Amino acid sequence: MIAPNRQQELKQLLTRMQIPDRTINWDLLDQSLIHPSFSTTYNNDYLEFFGDSVLRMVVVIFLRNNYSDRPVGDLAALRSHLVSDKVLAAIADGYGFDRFLVMGESARRDPKTSLSRLANSFEAVLGALYLSTNSFCLIKDWLEPHLSDISVSVLAKPAFGNSKAALQELTQANWHILPEYKAIASEEYQVFMVEVWVNNLCWGVGKGSSIKAAQQEAAAIALPALSQSIEISAKS
Amino acid sequence: MIAPNRQQELKQLLTRMQIPDRTINWDLLDQSLIHPSFSTTYNNDYLEFFGDSVLRMVVVIFLRNNYSDRPVGDLAALRSHLVSDKVLAAIADGYGFDRFLVMGESARRDPKTSLSRLANSFEAVLGALYLSTNSFCLIKDWLEPHLSDISVSVLAKPAFGNSKAALQELTQANWHILPEYKAIASEEYQVFMVEVWVNNLCWGVGKGSSIKAAQQEAAAIALPALSQSIEISAKS
Repeated sequence: MIAPNRQQELKQLLTRMQIPDRTINWDLLDQSLIHPSFSTTYNNDYLEFFGDSVLRMVVVIFLRNNYSDRPVGDLAALRSHLVSDKVLAAIADGYGFDRFLVMGESARRDPKTSLSRLANSFEAVLGALYLSTNSFCLIKDWLEPHLSDISVSVLAKPAFGNSKAALQELTQANWHILPEYKAIASEEYQVFMVEVWVNNLCWGVGKGSSIKAAQQEAAAIALPALSQSIEISAKS
Repeated sequence: MIAPNRQQELKQLLTRMQIPDRTINWDLLDQSLIHPSFSTTYNNDYLEFFGDSVLRMVVVIFLRNNYSDRPVGDLAALRSHLVSDKVLAAIADGYGFDRFLVMGESARRDPKTSLSRLANSFEAVLGALYLSTNSFCLIKDWLEPHLSDISVSVLAKPAFGNSKAALQELTQANWHILPEYKAIASEEYQVFMVEVWVNNLCWGVGKGSSIKAAQQEAAAIALPALSQSIEISAKS
């Protein structure tokens, strides 16, 4: 059982989020807002792990209901944006998650970890909300307007859908190099295959009815993988 | 509407899988078993995209119901195994998915793509099963015994949970090198932080109450990322 004043605090958060609190599992919601720097044994690690899958499921359902006319490549690009730490942290910050998150003093003072701390607690809260009802019902109505606003702004960007341009931006910003595309043999009639290489590793293989389409697909596959690797390196 | 003989064929597959066919959306199930080499416009690309999230959700629910006593690191390791192409392809192959998969002749003759073709069609079928009822009900009962068998065999391996050993195996097999671990400054009291570097990139940062625990965590983070990168490179 959580303390009455903590429950009051969490009620405030739910009010901000306009989520009804009748069916909430308060213990899980409490735990979802305990950072590992506060306790190595009772914290939001597991709920973040669970919530990551909840988020991905809610996102693909949202995309199906709203962007079913888009090519799969666009949907994959939208998804990787909607589940990125940056986007999740921004939503969490809008509700002032940091005020409700219990954490060690040193963690609070560390600006470098603020983004991942917010994003992780956001996923953990999604985990707690799902597990309160064993369904997406508390999450969908609340999260979908956010997903909608973000999608609209992403789709309006001129670089959207141009994965080659986005990948080039990424490799130039990080290593002042360009990705290398290599056409490879394809056994299928009128199907082209292209690999994209960065730093001596192949990060994606694309297929398409033209070399250009195959390059775009290879870049789209490489983008999230390379971004993740850069993100991990940057945290260090 | 799909042709009656195709529906008969798909009924056979469902019988093999012991999935009741009353609530099946036959058009979606048909599409889930059409490889992009057969048609660039009507194929299982989208359902694979959707099914990937369905799979991850079913896997975390399974892990919650069966392995809630395990540390999160173990669950993450189990998950990355359960959603790997190799495991999915093996399940799909057990039901003879290739016989039901409509594909171009050249694709069928290409042994290099057989693994990803099976894994992708497996995910696409999960997508079609979810969307038939907008729930996990057709999937859970059928998939959980598989997840259970695989988990038991993975957990029985001596290397399980020893991410450092597994990572070392991976880098030695691929490049004859060892991962490099670097302790980095941690501002938290009695918390150690370690980075793991392979090929001049940092693939993971681990945290723990000892250097050894932090190294294990770093290796556990690096493993799936590095495996994925090697898998993509190998496909080329």
